[in-house]
Amino acid sequence: MTPTAAAATEERLAAHRHRFDAAFAAYFTRLAATFDTPPHSRFTPQCLDLLRELSLRGGKRLRVVLLYEAARLVTTDENPPGLAEAALSVELLQTHGLVHDDIIDDSPVRRGGPSTHHAYRHAFPGHDRTALGLAVLAGDLAAFLSVRVLLDADAPAPLRQAMLDVQTRAATDAIAGQILDLERDFHDLPDAELLHTVTEYKSTRYSVLAPLRLGLLAAGEDPAPHDARLRRYATLTGICGQLRDDHLDLFGDDDALGKPPGGDLRAGRRTYALRAVLAEAGPADRAVVEAALGDPGAPPETLDRVRDIARRRGTDARFRADLRRYAERAAAEAAEWGGWWREEAVAFFTHLPLRIAKDVT
Amino acid sequence: MTPTAAAATEERLAAHRHRFDAAFAAYFTRLAATFDTPPHSRFTPQCLDLLRELSLRGGKRLRVVLLYEAARLVTTDENPPGLAEAALSVELLQTHGLVHDDIIDDSPVRRGGPSTHHAYRHAFPGHDRTALGLAVLAGDLAAFLSVRVLLDADAPAPLRQAMLDVQTRAATDAIAGQILDLERDFHDLPDAELLHTVTEYKSTRYSVLAPLRLGLLAAGEDPAPHDARLRRYATLTGICGQLRDDHLDLFGDDDALGKPPGGDLRAGRRTYALRAVLAEAGPADRAVVEAALGDPGAPPETLDRVRDIARRRGTDARFRADLRRYAERAAAEAAEWGGWWREEAVAFFTHLPLRIAKDVT
Repeated sequence: MTPTAAAATEERLAAHRHRFDAAFAAYFTRLAATFDTPPHSRFTPQCLDLLRELSLRGGKRLRVVLLYEAARLVTTDENPPGLAEAALSVELLQTHGLVHDDIIDDSPVRRGGPSTHHAYRHAFPGHDRTALGLAVLAGDLAAFLSVRVLLDADAPAPLRQAMLDVQTRAATDAIAGQILDLERDFHDLPDAELLHTVTEYKSTRYSVLAPLRLGLLAAGEDPAPHDARLRRYATLTGICGQLRDDHLDLFGDDDALGKPPGGDLRAGRRTYALRAVLAEAGPADRAVVEAALGDPGAPPETLDRVRDIARRRGTDARFRADLRRYAERAAAEAAEWGGWWREEAVAFFTHLPLRIAKDVT
Repeated sequence: MTPTAAAATEERLAAHRHRFDAAFAAYFTRLAATFDTPPHSRFTPQCLDLLRELSLRGGKRLRVVLLYEAARLVTTDENPPGLAEAALSVELLQTHGLVHDDIIDDSPVRRGGPSTHHAYRHAFPGHDRTALGLAVLAGDLAAFLSVRVLLDADAPAPLRQAMLDVQTRAATDAIAGQILDLERDFHDLPDAELLHTVTEYKSTRYSVLAPLRLGLLAAGEDPAPHDARLRRYATLTGICGQLRDDHLDLFGDDDALGKPPGGDLRAGRRTYALRAVLAEAGPADRAVVEAALGDPGAPPETLDRVRDIARRRGTDARFRADLRRYAERAAAEAAEWGGWWREEAVAFFTHLPLRIAKDVT
């Protein structure tokens, strides 16, 4: 990636994020004003507030960036019908996933603030079951809002229908992926193929493939004839994102993560990174890692020991080289799109995987 | 209700139930064959199996009955486009609600079998968090399937869109109602208006009003001009259903409930029935009821004491008289539909609330 290309990518990322964040805030303001809140209910507005708070607290908005840029592959129109609502749907589905994910993992922190489940625990001390219930319901609400925003889109009916089709399939794929993610941790040493399948279902389909399809649809392009190449790019980019996240969770710090590192280790998640450490460690080191896996109270010193094992064995370096290779393959896929799609957006998709890899390499 | 009318109502209920149950079983067979299950996943088919099991384990299918009969208000066509898919959507949304409800209430039993959450606990002894996670995901899956089945309906696009609009609004109303249901139990003695609001949002909208609208839509009738009268009927019938359920939970037996009675008492739910007991009890009796409310270990003897208090004070008799009055008002509403809708279905809607009331009066 040349410095110019890198700078252009950063600029576009920031502009997209900025534009979307304003639209997302406006959506929640409209929602609060129009939602059919039961009379005298205080808990319902509180639920909308918590969803708003978690949603606006950010993240990188990579899904929205992919969506916007996918539209730019075929049009210079920055706001084709349906695109704005697709962006809202993508991020509301993400909010739904985060709220329920943090229940499943009992995570107290998300995006540098309290998870919704723990925000409720805080609001209702001594009423953990109520807190759990309200968090389940908050996640459910976000799920249906992600559908409603597309139903209400100011766009032609066939486009709405096609987008709903993409998004609800992405949602069921993501649920199957989450189920497989829990299943994975019953394998002592899950093989690479299983981890790739988890990534594909749990993350790639809704985080990369669906935004690409939605962006093309909004721009008036049928994604079906391009399905094979979109899938190849999505799969490789999805793996990059997951390798990056897994690596950051093991080696990163609070700032990079928005939560303390070591969460995967303490939750017993046999991620790409921890699987690599286990596969390459000698028996003694392996026992150390196995003992820490799934121990919610494992202290920072234990995390440091696991990091040392990974560095000493060369696992860390090999892992980053792997990530770089996937990013280069994804970039090569996108580079071929130049034959039929707009060059500036093709350049963006070419640089993006390298940008993801750069976070850890 | 004359014996002939009562017999006709029973016959129609049984026929509708029978017809739907076969269609629902066929749906799950198709789903298992076509669902995009991740390769090598055993947990995903298990999740589909548990959803199938809970869904087919029954219930009275009153929502489906309302839907079918709403179509019959305007057409003799038993299978207008979209009706079959609307029925599946209605019951899948119900399955979604039951799965998450049983997490929220930590209920072990539903419809005479294990709740999904507890079925998972059984399948994964010692892994309560995995069981919770899988149950959350199973409920999420049912939610998105309830949308997908309408998206895939073999029906004109405007009808699909209108049905999706009704169903997703019903879903968000039901979630707001569930939130309010949890909020209610922070009131010592919730007033009747609050309880009616809970019923309206938590139950009436998706269980009565949405099926009525969906049935009319499938039959080619725009429900909008009839909105006020549909809402009046739905609200009264919804209250009947909730009064019946609350009464059965306090006074019923396992057979009538599909689960042990007293669940509301033990969960601390200030239902119509328990609210009436509290409001009408003297200080000593009231203390007995308050002590039992929210005590998960309250034995059957305690439940018997609360029942005695209700009977001694006349609360039980007044409660049943109330229910009868609501049923008669609902019946009177439906009786007026004879002016513009088909007589045999109008008769059905007239008899139905009386039939609901009869369960406890």
